This record gives sequence, C-alpha cells and structure tokens, in this order.
Amino acid sequence: MDENLLGIIAGILTSVAMMPQLIKVIREKNVEDISVMMLLVLISGLSLWVWYGILKDELPIILSNGFSVLVNLTLLTCCLIFKNKD
Amino acid sequence: MDENLLGIIAGILTSVAMMPQLIKVIREKNVEDISVMMLLVLISGLSLWVWYGILKDELPIILSNGFSVLVNLTLLTCCLIFKNKD
Repeated sequence: MDENLLGIIAGILTSVAMMPQLIKVIREKNVEDISVMMLLVLISGLSLWVWYGILKDELPIILSNGFSVLVNLTLLTCCLIFKNKD
Repeated sequence: MDENLLGIIAGILTSVAMMPQLIKVIREKNVEDISVMMLLVLISGLSLWVWYGILKDELPIILSNGFSVLVNLTLLTCCLIFKNKD
C-alpha cells in the first residue's frame, strides 16, 4: 500500500478516536477527570511529533499530530474555563 | 536536533501522557466513561501507524505506536472484564 495513503488513514482513525472525549467535555462541561498536567505533557509530545514530521518531510505525521495538538489545546482551554467555574 | 532522538523524546512524552488513564482504570476498576468502539478505532489507527513506521523504516514511530497499542489493548481488556462485572 502507498505509504502516504496508509499514514493518512492511520491519522484519520487516531484523530476520530479522540473526538468522543472532546465532544463529551464540551457537552457535559465536566473536566473533573482530566489532568491539566497530562494534557501539557501530551501537547508537548504531539508538538515534537509535528517537528519530527517537518524534519522528515512527512505530511501524514504533520497533519495528524497537528490536528491532535488542536484537539488537545481545545481540551486544555475547556479545562481552564470549566475548572475555574467550580 | 537528531531526528531519531526527537522522535524518541516525542514518543516518550505522548506515551507518558497516556499512563494516568491506564493507572486510574486499573485502580478504580471504573470503565463507565470509556467507549469500546472508540478503543477499537484507536487500536486500528495505532496499528496502521506501526505498519507505516515499518514501511518507512522509522524506529521512533514503530516503538511509540507499538507501546500505545499495548496500553490500549490493556485498556480494552480492562473494559471487557470490568463491564461484564456490572
């Protein structure tokens, strides 16, 4: 199979798998179980993956990890907003 | 920075970020909020990333996604065991 196509399918699957959590947090405004520290570590790791993808010039890695960074930045924003409300 | 070192650091960070959820599930035996469907999609996506890493011959991608597959297979096993108990 073409490597880029494989990477794009892999990226779509791992991105889709993250969506339920994001939707749940936005809907229920419940961030009790989410650790801000864990999100910061995850966002750092994902950003390094984007950097790795740029160095290796691999679009599937840049796109899927870039998308994950956005999703987790949104989760982080939700955490900061909803935690302050309590 | 060396690309492989960058990939390894990125992989360690994204792997570490997953551990709190695994530990929480094993400790509290509470899998209510985890979707089996979402885990299956995630495991499929991660497995394709391992395959992508093998095709591209990139060790950081193989190792970090292989580790994620293991963590999520463990979560899936926990889900199946603990959900049947209810």
